[in-house]
Amino acid sequence: MTRSELIGAIRAKRSYLCVGLDTHREKIPALLRGTPEDLLTFNKAIIEATAPYCVAYKPNLAFYEQYGTDGWNVLQQTIEAIPDDCLVIADAKRGDIGSTAEAYARALFENLGADAVTVSPYMGRDAIQPFLEHKHKWTIVLGLTSNPGADDFQYHGEPALHERVIRKCAEWGSSEQLMFVVGATRPEAMKTIRSWVPEHFFLVPGVGAQGGSLSAVSEAALTPDIGLLVNSSRGIIYAGSGEDFAAKAADAAAHLQAEMARLLNKQ
Amino acid sequence: MTRSELIGAIRAKRSYLCVGLDTHREKIPALLRGTPEDLLTFNKAIIEATAPYCVAYKPNLAFYEQYGTDGWNVLQQTIEAIPDDCLVIADAKRGDIGSTAEAYARALFENLGADAVTVSPYMGRDAIQPFLEHKHKWTIVLGLTSNPGADDFQYHGEPALHERVIRKCAEWGSSEQLMFVVGATRPEAMKTIRSWVPEHFFLVPGVGAQGGSLSAVSEAALTPDIGLLVNSSRGIIYAGSGEDFAAKAADAAAHLQAEMARLLNKQ
Repeated sequence: MTRSELIGAIRAKRSYLCVGLDTHREKIPALLRGTPEDLLTFNKAIIEATAPYCVAYKPNLAFYEQYGTDGWNVLQQTIEAIPDDCLVIADAKRGDIGSTAEAYARALFENLGADAVTVSPYMGRDAIQPFLEHKHKWTIVLGLTSNPGADDFQYHGEPALHERVIRKCAEWGSSEQLMFVVGATRPEAMKTIRSWVPEHFFLVPGVGAQGGSLSAVSEAALTPDIGLLVNSSRGIIYAGSGEDFAAKAADAAAHLQAEMARLLNKQ
Repeated sequence: MTRSELIGAIRAKRSYLCVGLDTHREKIPALLRGTPEDLLTFNKAIIEATAPYCVAYKPNLAFYEQYGTDGWNVLQQTIEAIPDDCLVIADAKRGDIGSTAEAYARALFENLGADAVTVSPYMGRDAIQPFLEHKHKWTIVLGLTSNPGADDFQYHGEPALHERVIRKCAEWGSSEQLMFVVGATRPEAMKTIRSWVPEHFFLVPGVGAQGGSLSAVSEAALTPDIGLLVNSSRGIIYAGSGEDFAAKAADAAAHLQAEMARLLNKQ
């Protein structure tokens, strides 16, 4: 999915919502739990219910890897179940030297079929470049994250490490193939980051369970070309725990989509 | 494997060698390639041949993930084939927020059965702490890596980012459960790093194919309690490409082990 296709999908659906598929057996509805197909059944129901309201899905690989080979199988089948007009983001936060990064890029873009991958910048350019070689895919580099630990190292130095990372990576990849993770919990910082990279999309976690505000994020970083994908995971997929869990997830997604439509109208 | 058990294994085998299992179908001997069991057959032969000369094995997950579910299966069976007196290091370089890091820790320590995991520090303490909660396992944090991209961000700021990372992480985890990745290509920097953390083990990649010198590394960072695991991947596992590939791998491992025995005698 190219940048203009993504912008087109956002305008058509009036939504820049990404649904995070952090699927955990202990948290899915009890009525599904324990069947051999429980995780996949859950994911498929969530995807079917929420697809009208979002433009991207983001499975976090940790939750699938914890179930070993079975989990990897569920992940592959989940990705196959995502409609073609939605971006598939493999939230993997990989980062390794050149030849290994090439293998990760093959694993995530080719074997798994993801459209986008999250990448950690600690190891520098040769950990990122092999992903960028896949010109028709998206590389999403961690910039400023939404967790408390972001303060430990991402503000280190002058300029702060996350500024150095974002400015440097923007030299390596254009806004046609590179995005940044920028946490929703720091809207004031997000506004500053937007001034450094006016064209690049931000993938924004931290709305909902982590306390970030959708309107604050949107005011800080929406651009004429949208430039935002806002993720919600737990707030949507675990909105309900009974038989109506998929309808509850759809309601939660629709609620965010409606607010996004309002924010887009204000532009 | 506790720290004292690891030191005991090193003294018994006169070796602090780690064999990197970066197994790639295009690089294994042609005579194996293409059979359904080729990767596992290769790994098992390499492990059997090299086990007398090393104390650790380090499969890099990228190379298995590129084959999807089949690859994950090979990884699990490879780990089962590693003798109990060798440390199993899952080279995964994971790093994500708390709840996700917990899932990765379960994936790698419990589901996969690794003794140690490599972790990226970019997201800070809550990306590392969940691994440290597994008291009888090892968490290996990226410090200063061996690749060219290490210069992009790991020297950022004053003190350099890698110093901040190593000193800070050493406050979070003791030398009984925390190690650092320190690249072999910078022995002068390794000596300095050793002065910051005199007790912690270093996992050292970059000897061999990447140009690092075993004797320079050992002079810079060996301690009275050894404190080093030196990894070689391609230089061992692809030492031969014919029918005698396992014997060639054993020769390459034995060669490094003999040099290690000599360096240990000099202590």
